[in-house]
Amino acid sequence: MYRVGILTASDKGVAGLREDLSAAAIREIMSTLEWRVVDYRIVPDELDAIRDALIDMADRERLDLVLTTGGTGFSPRDVTPEATKSVIDREVPGIPEVMRAASLKKTPRAMLSRAAAGIRKGTLIINLPGSQKAVRECLEAIMDGLPHGLEILTGRGGECGSPPFRGD
Amino acid sequence: MYRVGILTASDKGVAGLREDLSAAAIREIMSTLEWRVVDYRIVPDELDAIRDALIDMADRERLDLVLTTGGTGFSPRDVTPEATKSVIDREVPGIPEVMRAASLKKTPRAMLSRAAAGIRKGTLIINLPGSQKAVRECLEAIMDGLPHGLEILTGRGGECGSPPFRGD
Amino acid sequence: MYRVGILTASDKGVAGLREDLSAAAIREIMSTLEWRVVDYRIVPDELDAIRDALIDMADRERLDLVLTTGGTGFSPRDVTPEATKSVIDREVPGIPEVMRAASLKKTPRAMLSRAAAGIRKGTLIINLPGSQKAVRECLEAIMDGLPHGLEILTGRGGECGSPPFRGD
Repeated sequence: MYRVGILTASDKGVAGLREDLSAAAIREIMSTLEWRVVDYRIVPDELDAIRDALIDMADRERLDLVLTTGGTGFSPRDVTPEATKSVIDREVPGIPEVMRAASLKKTPRAMLSRAAAGIRKGTLIINLPGSQKAVRECLEAIMDGLPHGLEILTGRGGECGSPPFRGD
Repeated sequence: MYRVGILTASDKGVAGLREDLSAAAIREIMSTLEWRVVDYRIVPDELDAIRDALIDMADRERLDLVLTTGGTGFSPRDVTPEATKSVIDREVPGIPEVMRAASLKKTPRAMLSRAAAGIRKGTLIINLPGSQKAVRECLEAIMDGLPHGLEILTGRGGECGSPPFRGD
Repeated sequence: MYRVGILTASDKGVAGLREDLSAAAIREIMSTLEWRVVDYRIVPDELDAIRDALIDMADRERLDLVLTTGGTGFSPRDVTPEATKSVIDREVPGIPEVMRAASLKKTPRAMLSRAAAGIRKGTLIINLPGSQKAVRECLEAIMDGLPHGLEILTGRGGECGSPPFRGD
């Protein structure tokens, strides 16, 4: 139903030193929703590389949803939220709030996730953490609310017959 | 006690195609507090129109509180938070956090609310959602904390005899 | 283990009209952690004064952690979050979220705290409230997650043998 892209920010991943288990976890969850992962990219933890990939995925590929993984923590090279905030038109603070609240039930370290989310034109961009386990927790926490957001954003959907609950 | 303005952002409302039940709900709740709604405006979902109204209500009318309704969701024309953030001097993230946490108990879609809140000079501006039901939920969630904020912001009040709990 | 600075923003404190009980509370909690408070400053509630102090504590003193107290509320002179946001490279929204959620269990007024947190180069800066009691509540709420953040940020630590839970 929706066209999804995955963007992994990982120096080790780019260097081939790390298997991208997080992207695999995202793919698996997307398939259960029948959403199609049509793009997957891996870039180093660099602001420009992440930024350029996000712009291309939103403006040229016109994906409905881009899920990033990695680069949301305290390491000096973790800059995925900064890259994301630099390209979005409209921030969606409730999505990271819900993800952090869910992860906090597992570990107090969840407060360290600097994940952001926002909309660029017709594309919703969401930062997920880097670890496979945390990716699953976070996606699970937002999956109930996410379909309606994409429905409104894209003007598609409505097929599920759910009553509208619009911001306007 | 406090002078309140309501700003509805709604294309349909401006066109006369939709009764403004949310503004009516806000009026009703304000009257129970004996706060006076002294201004009510309805504008289209356009950044400049919302922005200009907020500036006028804060700087010229010097309202204590402006409650907006509408334009906080994912629709391409929902830009109330962006207009709000462009005019405030000081953001108040805890207010939308509390509103979203309350709404999340009712529906997972509450995470999609992009509502913001902040202070412009002596005026507190709070984005409420567009639906009457959600407006009631959100206002209810913040009503216990709000009076103290206005007391400190305006330098008035204190008549309730509550002990000070100041940021400073 | 970590080098900590305390920055109190308080007009009354600078004027000698108020004992700095909040800074004393921070010192006490830091000593239980064996973190060393190596700098303490008190400045008026002015954006430039707070900003300059933060920059000096981060860039010249290279502290690992700066805890501010005061200036996070609704008073017209409360500008600590604005000063903080103007100097950080990377925001850490989860820290104030956790502090507000903890304080909200005590009082609905906690939603009025505008505290921010973020990273400037190798220094984590966290805004704490102004009252001694609220400082204790907020620090307690984040103490379990904080050591890991400083570990990753500074590249030190790991001595506790805890498994890594990195953003990347």
